[in-house]
Amino acid sequence: MRIKIVVVGKVKESAFQNRITEYVKWVNKEIPVELIPLKDGKSKDVELKQLSHLSPNIFSICLSEEGNQVSSREFSKLIYKQTRDIVFLIGGPNGHSESIRKKTDYLLSFSKMTFPHEMALMILTEQLFRAISIKKGSKYHRD
Amino acid sequence: MRIKIVVVGKVKESAFQNRITEYVKWVNKEIPVELIPLKDGKSKDVELKQLSHLSPNIFSICLSEEGNQVSSREFSKLIYKQTRDIVFLIGGPNGHSESIRKKTDYLLSFSKMTFPHEMALMILTEQLFRAISIKKGSKYHRD
Repeated sequence: MRIKIVVVGKVKESAFQNRITEYVKWVNKEIPVELIPLKDGKSKDVELKQLSHLSPNIFSICLSEEGNQVSSREFSKLIYKQTRDIVFLIGGPNGHSESIRKKTDYLLSFSKMTFPHEMALMILTEQLFRAISIKKGSKYHRD
Repeated sequence: MRIKIVVVGKVKESAFQNRITEYVKWVNKEIPVELIPLKDGKSKDVELKQLSHLSPNIFSICLSEEGNQVSSREFSKLIYKQTRDIVFLIGGPNGHSESIRKKTDYLLSFSKMTFPHEMALMILTEQLFRAISIKKGSKYHRD
């Protein structure tokens, strides 16, 4: 399994970038993970670029406040039960188009609250690391 | 109104500290906010220290995965409708005791997922800044 994270907009804050780099490094030891930044712009252009990362061979997860909420343990199960590669889509400040939300396999929500997209990316990479820790039974995760 | 944030355990990661310092600085321009770190230790000792920050004059909010989830707009309303000072309690790696959860006025959850306590503190300070931005109608928050 490979994981791609397609994220609209740059990570501008070095503090967020620092944590993201660290979590991605840890995740990469177990699951190859690639960050793909998309330039923010006209919603139609962004949508086309996002769609180019979807395919029937890939399980697609769209981060959306209206999505399903799962616990960290359930998230770990969701990841590990996939037999296909996984792509995560993180929107920019304007969120995702309706079309993207409909065309992805799963809508995932971290919170009812609105977070900056850089923070959402940081949370995702931390949860991926946590998902691996849960699977391996390491001490990182405590219920 | 004044806000206190009582948090168990140190913020070890400088990246988290960097963002927390920045958000606290921004919040402080509108609402005086104070971070009070408590040393992690025996749960009974931690609990006594936490209890010393509760009083009938203070609206207490305990961060707990089993708490209520609110949107950023609802969180903003929750903060601004208080006439008393507010204290937030953030637990350490072992969470809060049952007694603390019962003695606080409100249980708040950011997510069904488990976050590191440093990240929970960072999210809280960002949401306080967002709550102010929503109240003031600034461009920081977009629905």
